[in-house]
Parts: sequence; C-alpha cells; structure tokens
Amino acid sequence: MNALAETAELRNDLDLPAKDARHVLHPWADLQALGSDRPVVMNSAKGVRVKDSEGTTYLDAIGGMWCMTVGYGCEELADAIGDQARQMAYYTSFGDVSNEPAAQLAEKLAELSPGDLNRVHFTTGGSTAVESAVRIAHYYFAAQGKPEKRHVLSRVNAYHGGTYLTQSLSGKAADKTHFHYETEFIHHLSSPGHDPDRDPLSAEARLTELLDEMEAEIQRLGPENVACFVAEPILASGGVLTPPKGYQKATLELCRKHGILYVSDEVVTGFGRLGHFFASEARFGIVPDMIITAKGITSGYQPLGAVLVSDRIAETISKAAPSEKPVFSNGFTYSGHPVACAAALTNIKIMTRDDICGHVRDVGPYFMARLRELLDSPIVYTVRGDHLMACVECWTGEEAGPNDKNMALAARVDAYCQEAGLLVRPYENLCILSPPLVISRDDIDEIVGIMGSALTRAAADLEAGRL
Amino acid sequence: MNALAETAELRNDLDLPAKDARHVLHPWADLQALGSDRPVVMNSAKGVRVKDSEGTTYLDAIGGMWCMTVGYGCEELADAIGDQARQMAYYTSFGDVSNEPAAQLAEKLAELSPGDLNRVHFTTGGSTAVESAVRIAHYYFAAQGKPEKRHVLSRVNAYHGGTYLTQSLSGKAADKTHFHYETEFIHHLSSPGHDPDRDPLSAEARLTELLDEMEAEIQRLGPENVACFVAEPILASGGVLTPPKGYQKATLELCRKHGILYVSDEVVTGFGRLGHFFASEARFGIVPDMIITAKGITSGYQPLGAVLVSDRIAETISKAAPSEKPVFSNGFTYSGHPVACAAALTNIKIMTRDDICGHVRDVGPYFMARLRELLDSPIVYTVRGDHLMACVECWTGEEAGPNDKNMALAARVDAYCQEAGLLVRPYENLCILSPPLVISRDDIDEIVGIMGSALTRAAADLEAGRL
Ligand SMILES: Cc1ncc(COP(=O)(O)O)c(C=O)c1O
Ligand SMILES: Cc1ncc(COP(=O)(O)O)c(C=O)c1O
Repeated sequence: MNALAETAELRNDLDLPAKDARHVLHPWADLQALGSDRPVVMNSAKGVRVKDSEGTTYLDAIGGMWCMTVGYGCEELADAIGDQARQMAYYTSFGDVSNEPAAQLAEKLAELSPGDLNRVHFTTGGSTAVESAVRIAHYYFAAQGKPEKRHVLSRVNAYHGGTYLTQSLSGKAADKTHFHYETEFIHHLSSPGHDPDRDPLSAEARLTELLDEMEAEIQRLGPENVACFVAEPILASGGVLTPPKGYQKATLELCRKHGILYVSDEVVTGFGRLGHFFASEARFGIVPDMIITAKGITSGYQPLGAVLVSDRIAETISKAAPSEKPVFSNGFTYSGHPVACAAALTNIKIMTRDDICGHVRDVGPYFMARLRELLDSPIVYTVRGDHLMACVECWTGEEAGPNDKNMALAARVDAYCQEAGLLVRPYENLCILSPPLVISRDDIDEIVGIMGSALTRAAADLEAGRL
Repeated sequence: MNALAETAELRNDLDLPAKDARHVLHPWADLQALGSDRPVVMNSAKGVRVKDSEGTTYLDAIGGMWCMTVGYGCEELADAIGDQARQMAYYTSFGDVSNEPAAQLAEKLAELSPGDLNRVHFTTGGSTAVESAVRIAHYYFAAQGKPEKRHVLSRVNAYHGGTYLTQSLSGKAADKTHFHYETEFIHHLSSPGHDPDRDPLSAEARLTELLDEMEAEIQRLGPENVACFVAEPILASGGVLTPPKGYQKATLELCRKHGILYVSDEVVTGFGRLGHFFASEARFGIVPDMIITAKGITSGYQPLGAVLVSDRIAETISKAAPSEKPVFSNGFTYSGHPVACAAALTNIKIMTRDDICGHVRDVGPYFMARLRELLDSPIVYTVRGDHLMACVECWTGEEAGPNDKNMALAARVDAYCQEAGLLVRPYENLCILSPPLVISRDDIDEIVGIMGSALTRAAADLEAGRL
C-alpha cells in the first residue's frame, strides 16, 4: 500500500466540514459562528482550479491568498519537495550550521534582489520576516549606541502580519478588535492610496500631502528616534491601494535624509505578481535597505519567508557587535528549512525557465483592461490594481466606502461568483482578485464573465430591495 | 531527467560553505564572524545520522534541535509530503475555508491532548504559536470587558521564541542583547530549576520559595491585571532545568485561584521526548488552558506549530465576540498548511504504530543512567534531564555556572565530540543532548563513549593549562 492510500485509510472522511467546525480555530474566523459554521474544505487542485470535499470545482481567482505563481499540482515542484524531504528533511541553521538548499537559495535571492541586498535571513513566513526586519533595525541602531532610535512608521490600511508586533504595525481598522496592540513605538501615517478615477485631488497634490504628513510625523517624533519605515509598494490586503506616482521614491529619499531605514514589504508584490521578481526597483525605482518576501517565493507550496538585508546593514551590525555577546538572537527552529528552501529554488527555476514574469507583464494589462469593463455596472464604484493584483469596489450608488449596505452588496457579489464556480476574496465592500500567475487569457475572460453576471444579479437584488 | 537531477544541475556546488558565509544571516549567528565563518553545510541524513557537504558523517545527538522523532530519511513521511504537495500544496485557511489534512489533524490533536483542549489554532512554528496563545489570552479577557487583564508571567531561563513578543517572554540572559524588548506587560519570575544533586535547598523548600515569589508577583501586579502564565514543563534550551516535584501542579492551582490562564509550552516536551504525546497531564498531572506544540509534531520535516485551546476559552471568546467585529484577527498565510498538516498526520501515524513514546519510556531511563556515568569526570559538575532531553554541565572544578573558563571548557568538549563524529549542542557551559526519539541502546552507548573520551581530552587540556 502506498503512503497516500495509507493516509487515506487513516482518515475517516465521514464529515470533514463538521470535524473542522468542531476543532479548528481559523485565522480571521467569524467568532460568533465558531463551531456552527460549516467550512468549505478544499482537497485537491490543478492549475488555476481547486476542488472541495464535496466535489465542486472553482476557478481560484484568489491565487491561494496571493501565493500561487506556477499553479496547483505542479509535478516538478512536488517532486523537489518530496525528494528533499527524503534526502534531508530538516537540520537546524542556528549559528554556524547550514544546509545545501538554504545556502543555494540565499545566493539566488541575492542575485534576484536589487542593489546590495545580498544577505538573507530566512524565516517561516511574512509575519516573522517583518518581525525580523524591525528587530534588525532596532539592533542596527542600538549597536551603534542609539537604542532610542527605535520608533517605527507604518500606514493606515497596511497589512504586515498576524503577530503582536506585525498586527500592531498593520493599519486595517477592521482587524483592530479585542487584542492588545503596541502603540508606544509604532505610528501610522495616512493610507497612501490614490485612485485617479475617483480621488478629488490630483496625484501631485496627494503626493505633496502625504510627504508633508510624513515629514511632520518624523519631526514630531524626532528623526533621532525613528528606526524604520515599513511599507508595501502597493497595499495589498488593505484594499489594493496604489500610492500616487513617485511616492515610493520620495518616501525613500525622506528616509535617507533622516537616517531612517526603509523596509519594503514585498510579500505580495514580489515573485512576479507585478511582472518582476521584486517590484521595488523594477517598478518603483527604489533600492530599499531591506526587502521582505514570502508567499510567492515557494508558490505557496511551502511555508517560507525571508528578509533581504543590505550589505551595509550586515557590515554595520557585524562591526558593532559587542565582544561579550555578539550573538544575533533572532530566528526560528524552521529558519532555512531545507524542504522549504528546495521548493523555493525549484519555483525560481520554473519561473525563470517559463518566463512567468514575462507572462504577467503580458496578461496583466489585459486582466486590468477586461476588469475595467465591469465599471459599466451601476454597483461598481471603481476598479483598481496593477497586473495580477486587483479589486472591484462595490457601492449602492449612494455613499462610497465600506458601510453596511456596500459590504452586504459585495458579499452578495462574492456569493454569486462562488455559486458560479469562481472564488474571489471578500473584504469589506471589495472583491479582491489575485489569480495564480499562470492564468491564461481564457481564464481571465471566464473570471470577468462570471463577475459580470454576478454583478448583474446583485444589482437586480439591490434594485428589487432584496438586500 | 528527474527533478532531483535537474535541481542538482541548477546548483553550482563549487563552495557551499563560502556561499553561505557570503549570503546567509543565521539565527543566533556570531555577528563578529559574519562573512568570515565557514559553516558546516549539512546535505543528507538517514536515521540518527547526518552528513555534511564534505562527506563527514555525524551521529546527531541534537535531534535537529529537539525536532526529530521518527529519524531522518523516513520514506513514508517523505512520500506523504510529496503526495500532498501534488494533490493540493496550498490553500488558505482564513475565515470559513479549510483543507482536508488540517481538518483531520485538528481532530487527531484534540484526541491526543488532555482534558477539553479540543480547539486547534494552527501556526507556522513555536514562536507564532506562543504569540497566538498570548493574544488569545488578551482577547479572552478584553472581550469580557477586562482589557487591563493583559500582563504575562514568564520565568528567567525560559525560551519561547524569536519574535519581538516571544523573545521578550524568553528569559535567557545570554540572548538579551541590542534588540528592543517588551517590558511593560511581561514579567519574569525566577528560574525554577532544581538540581537534587547540587542544590543546597531541598525540593520542598525550593518549591515553597518559588510559589511564594509567584504569589507575591501576582499580588504586586494585581490578579485582576494578569492574563496568563507561560511555562515550559521542563525548561529546554535555557539549560534543561526541571522544577521541583509538584511545581507544575501548584503553579496551575495558583493560576486558577487568581483567574489566570495557564499556557503550557510543550514545543520541546511534547511529541514523545518525555515518553508521551503531551507531558502536561501524563507526566505533571495538569490540564492547562492552552498547550503550545511545534517541532516534533512533524518530526521537523515541515514547519508547523499549533495552540491547543480549551473548549471553555473557545466558547467564551465566541460568546463575547462583538456583533460589529466578531473577527479573530490572528493567524498566518501558512496557517493549516496542507503539506505541513499531512506531514504531522503521517508522523503521528508512524509514532503511534511503532509506539515511539513507549520506546522513549524504555530507552529514556537508560540514556539518563548511562549519561550519569560521566559524573566520574572531574570536569562534569552535574548531569541532568529527563528521558531524551538532557545536559552535561561542565566546570573547571572551581566556581560552578556559566563563566568564561567553564564556557571555554564546554566548547572544547563539543569540539572533541564533533571531531569524533558526534553533534551535541553547546550552550554556555553546557552540552545539551536531544537525540532523535528512535535512538537505539547502541547509539546511546556510542554517544556516551564519545562524550567520555572528549571529557577526558578536555580534562587533560585543563590540567596541562591548554585552555
Ligand atoms: C504585505 C504582507 N506582509 C506580510 C504578510 C504576513 O505574511 P504571513 O501571513 O505569511 O505571516 C502578508 C500576508 O498577507 C502581507 O500581505
Ligand atoms: C520551548 C520552546 N518554545 C518555543 C520555541 C520557539 O519555536 P520556533 O523556533 O519554532 O519558533 C522553542 C524553540 O526552540 C522552544 O524550545
């Protein structure tokens, strides 16, 4: 009996959704429905499609939560994972021990990343990578005798993770609930999104406003107290918010002027979603001090994150390390996990060989153009995004933004999409789309077709007072 | 060409240690040696042995950092991993979506865990699981209108992880360096280790002292302000410190008396290392409010962690969830990762079928007894531990504890062990051992034999002034 058959035997599949409802506390669960909600349990997937435990197939326009690059069921990637698990499934990378895939991947990432970001600190995902970047910034200044330079700038609508520190960094109002948050050294600037179709201000005026606010906040805190600025180039799960043109570069210059480290969170924008392995330099003309990567680095096939650190930072912390305790006490048991690193190496190989970034640069504009056709619907307020990260913002035609009616309307659109076999990600009054990077034009047509019908049905519901 | 051959081709193996030195920032790296240190690069492993990139084989008495249960190169586990990667390598488990291995594993964990710990929140490792437990405790009280009940008790020499919050919880002095730590709501009690051979106080007297201190600290903070106590049943990486008998139960009772949640961190003690899937109840007679697990849950083959939560907590947070924002905004992209959960399921299957816990209960006492023979060496201060977690504490015969000479001596012992093909984990003046759970009596004899010779050589060095 092979392992899969044995595993299947071990499993008693009577009622997976019921088991899940009874035993799992999901991330971002609706707590009021805890135990009563019957989840959709996914159990197989191929290409851009997933199938649930009841046999229903969906086109996955969420891309497994911004993760999926090469598509589901990639034999080559599955083989690399299985083979590495067989060869050496684990070894610690603490101190001066390493493993082959981690060493190879670090070199590869240094090659793909911009400027002098040649030093890699591996983690277990995006949150732990952002954690590590902030801690590196703290170490960097404290080791130079400036422990007070530890304040961190973030932004409203940012998303940086699920730990205490990264949830405190995040700025999504909907997420701030009965948890405790760090507020002493973390500060939020305004949400920097600018929608050319809808914003009353011009991009230039908005940019000036944002930079003035940032300068004022730095002055309020004192530049000598600010360690770093953490920023997604385009804010992803906060609502696919693109800052006005020139924002990334201008904020980097502001940081440089004040000796503040710039951390570019490319957990979503990296690994091809905007058509390049990293978007910071290729799309926004910046070489930050650190880049965060996760998600697409393994096409989601394995849990992995990393902070790419500049040679300058690495040299400074190395030189400033005290003689008694020169230890970099940050990291995780699974840092540089050989199976996860092997997956990333093979994912990069496939993405390079098949020019998946080129494919995204090709279909990305088509995706956005086709989605913009949905603006014809009376319940679409705006369509925004960039290449394969996009969202459709719904409204009842009255007040824009996330209010009860708009949120119910978007939820209705999502439900109709799901009924028709399309998964989009609901967030407030938005339908967020981040399809697997291997999506074809035909798939895109299917997405837009289904969304169009769903919008028509939801608009009719609204019209008829059925909402 | 198969995937492994292709991957090998992709890799240019000229000088792996040099690549690693150039590009990796390791967890717990010696920063002063950054870039110049040539790491040992492991690249294959089988059973209890690992081989480095230069062809040297070692008996791994570190167990891949407390992780390894079923041993390296387990075909069955590697197959389960590869097969799941092929079937469905990823899907999000945010909200009301799940996947088959996660649902099955949650049920299995509920079955293995004590009492009413039936609700599972999956994470990416130990640190993110401890983070989540503390955040759950915060939510639990805040949702009941007590946001001020958020202080957390930990202990000196505890280790709970590498994030901002979990490093702040940790109490290892050696780790506290130029990073920033949370000190407002986190408080450390004394290290609770008691060594019957060496401690001047009796176990009873030590226990009274520890409980008095804990009660006094709770009174100082006000019980109405304390959310939880986070504790390893035996402190692992802080130096294999076993509290006096009855400590776990008495501290739990103290917590219950004051309405404080008890979080048992079983990242090391769980999954067989003390001879049971969970040690809290089986070994220490307690049913905590939450249990943290990671490491051995997948035998280290995949990054995974989990918090097991009591039904009472789950019900309370569910009932107290507000109607506008009932969302449990905690979790990670890779929470409930299907490949990691499939690995854990198969690991549990193998451990159960092969009665690996029974094996540990059998060889554990033999391991400890044989290690205690090393007490004959003049440079061994004490040997302590429990089943397959142990340490040998070195000293020059003068002052005990971690001082420069004792630390250099232990480092010398480690180096001689490594020369002779045995990996033990150096920490201060200790040699820490946590072999794979499948270790045989012959392997144990080999470990003790090599350690004995290494101790003899190091003692001769000390004697001859070569230290
Ligand atoms: C921009 C960004 N940063 C960080 C994270 C956190 O990553 P993870 O969920 O892997 O911890 C996310 C996750 O969605 C993200 O979108
Ligand atoms: C007791 C304990 N808790 C938590 C952790 C943190 O786990 P991880 O390194 O997987 O984040 C460790 C790691 O060594 C540990 O020993």
